[in-house]
Amino acid sequence: MIVKIGGGETIDLDAFCKDVAEVSKNQKLILVHGASVKRDEVAEKLGIATKYLTSPSGHIGVYTDNQAIEVLSMVYAGLVNKKIVTKLQSFGVNAVGLSGADGRIWEGKRKKVLISVEDGKKKLIRDTYTGKVEKVNAELLNNLVSQGYVPVITQPAISYESELINTDNDRNIAVMARDLKVKKLVVLFEAPGLLKDVDDESSLIKSINKSEIEAVMQQVSGRMRKKALGAKEAIENGVEEIYWSDARVEKPITEALNHKGTIIK
Amino acid sequence: MIVKIGGGETIDLDAFCKDVAEVSKNQKLILVHGASVKRDEVAEKLGIATKYLTSPSGHIGVYTDNQAIEVLSMVYAGLVNKKIVTKLQSFGVNAVGLSGADGRIWEGKRKKVLISVEDGKKKLIRDTYTGKVEKVNAELLNNLVSQGYVPVITQPAISYESELINTDNDRNIAVMARDLKVKKLVVLFEAPGLLKDVDDESSLIKSINKSEIEAVMQQVSGRMRKKALGAKEAIENGVEEIYWSDARVEKPITEALNHKGTIIK
Repeated sequence: MIVKIGGGETIDLDAFCKDVAEVSKNQKLILVHGASVKRDEVAEKLGIATKYLTSPSGHIGVYTDNQAIEVLSMVYAGLVNKKIVTKLQSFGVNAVGLSGADGRIWEGKRKKVLISVEDGKKKLIRDTYTGKVEKVNAELLNNLVSQGYVPVITQPAISYESELINTDNDRNIAVMARDLKVKKLVVLFEAPGLLKDVDDESSLIKSINKSEIEAVMQQVSGRMRKKALGAKEAIENGVEEIYWSDARVEKPITEALNHKGTIIK
Repeated sequence: MIVKIGGGETIDLDAFCKDVAEVSKNQKLILVHGASVKRDEVAEKLGIATKYLTSPSGHIGVYTDNQAIEVLSMVYAGLVNKKIVTKLQSFGVNAVGLSGADGRIWEGKRKKVLISVEDGKKKLIRDTYTGKVEKVNAELLNNLVSQGYVPVITQPAISYESELINTDNDRNIAVMARDLKVKKLVVLFEAPGLLKDVDDESSLIKSINKSEIEAVMQQVSGRMRKKALGAKEAIENGVEEIYWSDARVEKPITEALNHKGTIIK
């Protein structure tokens, strides 16, 4: 089972790690985590605040230039990853934190040119380190898991040309599921699941049929669209159950598996 | 063989990684690296410049408080580690970067109280995250090496209570050598080896007998004393050859093994 947790501000990593300790007694786990809030905070302090690009289709994405990829490495693979690893260790979980670059765990294509729209004008952006993961080092991950470790994977990934690249965790877990033959994904974030009305936490949609995910993708926006895209790709890759659930509760994974959030199957 | 490289400013990591690619064709390697200069640079930019403590015996050490251990994690395990990993990957070396906390690779005792001398007065320092590695997860490292990976290990380590701690690489490799039954260490830094006169790079001492290392330790100061202490402990742990050599040359490991620096045996 792969469990992905976001990098949001209201997420209680302590509770999450405690729950990992519980769940991992009966189930082999691989964790994937974000750190976007912390990344923005450190970037700000370093005087190189996170920049954004608007694509011709109106999508706003992070502009990961040379400085930004360094901050990303520091905060994701250094600060937050090691924080999660030690918390897990303190609860008796033998966690091993790795970035997608290590052993080429997440390998993919770097987008060498992005088109950005500024003041109505198109601009080519070349100094960007973003991309899409296409291959996973399943052997290394399987080996760690079979030895009793819990791999804790995070950004950055590595390009075919061995550059660090910023990729999308929601889509990466779909590729991981394919290469690791994982059938169950738990995706935790700062909402109870998929909401009919994004401003009303009680408007939870309890279940979605696999076949509806494409339609869901068209209805949602922002981060949820990326999650829906990841879910769609995961289903295409053979995943049978995806749990979208609240990361802010005491036992986020347990609650997700107990159908407290949205189930896609 | 364990190769340790310092975190100095004049070290050419490109050349180092190229040489690793060469040497690792015929020899299984584990790398250990520093990042002190980069750490100080980032800390400075974050407005939390590296602080120092003076022990009652006059030894000056880094004061690793809560903020400093975070910067250490970011820069060593995030920034520099992933930089080395991708450089190695670009030369065809399947590097896996890990901190000492991952899988409890470097486990040890946190010093809960340090005595610091300020203006002639002794002061107890409690918010310090430093310690000494006592145990190595040899199983994890051996497993990675036997699968063809080159582990790239760095700070921080982990305490028995699962806190991140700043430890000493020169002493850590002595514990690694014991637990991994390694007989050969290469220690690369910003000097041609051990110098009779620290200001004269031509005063290289080509060879030291194992039995003389204690005496050497008494003669040298600063970082070299730590290296000598590490060498002494490594010899006690069964290491047969230690190469102290220049990290600033084109093929630092090859040259070390070709006796260009100081050999302790």
